[in-house]
Amino acid sequence: MGTGLLFTEDGSAEVVAASFAGTPDARLKRVMTALVEHLHAFVKEVELTEAEWAVAIDFLTRTGQKCDAARQEFILLSDVLGVSMLVETINHRSGGTATESTVLGPFHVVESPPRALGDDVALDGKGTPCLVEGRVTGPGGEPIAGATVDIWQANEDGFYDVQQPGVQPPLNLRGLFTTDAGGRYWFRSVVPRYYPIPDDGPVGELLAATARHPYRPAHLHFIVSAPGYRPVTTHVFVAGSPYLESDAVFGVKESLIREVPEVDDPARAASVGLPNPFRVLTFDVVLRT
Amino acid sequence: MGTGLLFTEDGSAEVVAASFAGTPDARLKRVMTALVEHLHAFVKEVELTEAEWAVAIDFLTRTGQKCDAARQEFILLSDVLGVSMLVETINHRSGGTATESTVLGPFHVVESPPRALGDDVALDGKGTPCLVEGRVTGPGGEPIAGATVDIWQANEDGFYDVQQPGVQPPLNLRGLFTTDAGGRYWFRSVVPRYYPIPDDGPVGELLAATARHPYRPAHLHFIVSAPGYRPVTTHVFVAGSPYLESDAVFGVKESLIREVPEVDDPARAASVGLPNPFRVLTFDVVLRT
Repeated sequence: MGTGLLFTEDGSAEVVAASFAGTPDARLKRVMTALVEHLHAFVKEVELTEAEWAVAIDFLTRTGQKCDAARQEFILLSDVLGVSMLVETINHRSGGTATESTVLGPFHVVESPPRALGDDVALDGKGTPCLVEGRVTGPGGEPIAGATVDIWQANEDGFYDVQQPGVQPPLNLRGLFTTDAGGRYWFRSVVPRYYPIPDDGPVGELLAATARHPYRPAHLHFIVSAPGYRPVTTHVFVAGSPYLESDAVFGVKESLIREVPEVDDPARAASVGLPNPFRVLTFDVVLRT
Repeated sequence: MGTGLLFTEDGSAEVVAASFAGTPDARLKRVMTALVEHLHAFVKEVELTEAEWAVAIDFLTRTGQKCDAARQEFILLSDVLGVSMLVETINHRSGGTATESTVLGPFHVVESPPRALGDDVALDGKGTPCLVEGRVTGPGGEPIAGATVDIWQANEDGFYDVQQPGVQPPLNLRGLFTTDAGGRYWFRSVVPRYYPIPDDGPVGELLAATARHPYRPAHLHFIVSAPGYRPVTTHVFVAGSPYLESDAVFGVKESLIREVPEVDDPARAASVGLPNPFRVLTFDVVLRT
């Protein structure tokens, strides 16, 4: 501070940026300077009115006050403005053949239970049975034995287990699997369904005011990791799901969409413990070194 | 929604902006579109890390949760980022000879009591006595009789009355005056002092992390209005006050700074009811039609 600059409309960003000149941490200084420049440019471009500013202050205040141990409304706001997805993408540029990442989402809040290959994670008995399987490889296609495949998904009613304590069995639709010698994993689950993000708060008001729906297309979450490789946090999306082209949080990437065909193969059905015919979701994952 | 666009790093702002295409209110659509463009440009410019994003989410959450009936931490955040001042300036461009505006601030929360010209507003008996006086005119210099001059200021200890209920007399250092036939107003007060904005919350943490102080230079708040003229919300700042060139909320404009000289004039001192010599703060106000 003490820059000798007084406020002017034209020089507003420079005056405020100058106040951060003494910031000891160089990175914080850069981030705050850029934030002020972009924020002032926004206010100037739209010539924000005092009434609109007051609405924004009230909105941000209520967004903070909606947060508690089970609800993070500011993450939801970041999600519906595409900021979460942008930060995720910038920090995990995939490159080459590696599997692309997408948002972690707010529901990876309990540790997934270790399960054996082939186990059924659908503990509530709802939904359309489905075999989920794939292979984890390195960039050159080499299979990775012993890779960890952490998965979680919402149930047929559109809720994660942690959203319905006492309704869903604990750890429903979660599992931690380890690939076999060929880098393969497989387990039984149900075909994922689309569901709405929580829309009874300020973010829901914003979606309603802008004629946006709160739905996410059907997907299954993955975190795949292995020693010597970079882990990937991603989803696989179900081809043909409603909202695939209008995900409320912009999580969909073309490379992550998969068909979930019906397979008529009595021998295989019997071997995996599913009635024939059955649905199969195949998702191969390529990790970077 | 349903734009058919999937998320990409390069096209992130376009994809999110497209989600607002169906917003019924054209102004809201424009504001949200511009917000997304500037917000994404900021994230891309600094390549925000996931850890920094998490710090921002936590900061915004705590800022909302610090707010209550007596504290508005998001307004304080807007203030220290110069956004309040920018919005104020954009919406009240003065032009010509009209008195420039500055921020209202958060302490005009009670109605100022009507007082007679010459009254003393310093009810707590602290500080350096001062005559405050001036003339309210129109743009051509014509005096405005019957103009309303609403004033408020912090006391010698740096607090407004509403910050110290039970400590300061109610309505201490507040007054609503009406100009005489010559457009003149005058009252007794004390020379304003500098003071810190509340810095025991997230905004205080931000100031500390960026080596900024929380002080505002000495000032007296004014709202001046008259039928047929545009009201002006402003301050007069005391020349030579500490922090004049580093106001924590960027409220200072060159045109609003005034000397508060000592006057040696026994007759005038007696006529206004002050000991001689005394200090005088003269602030003429020009309203636009």
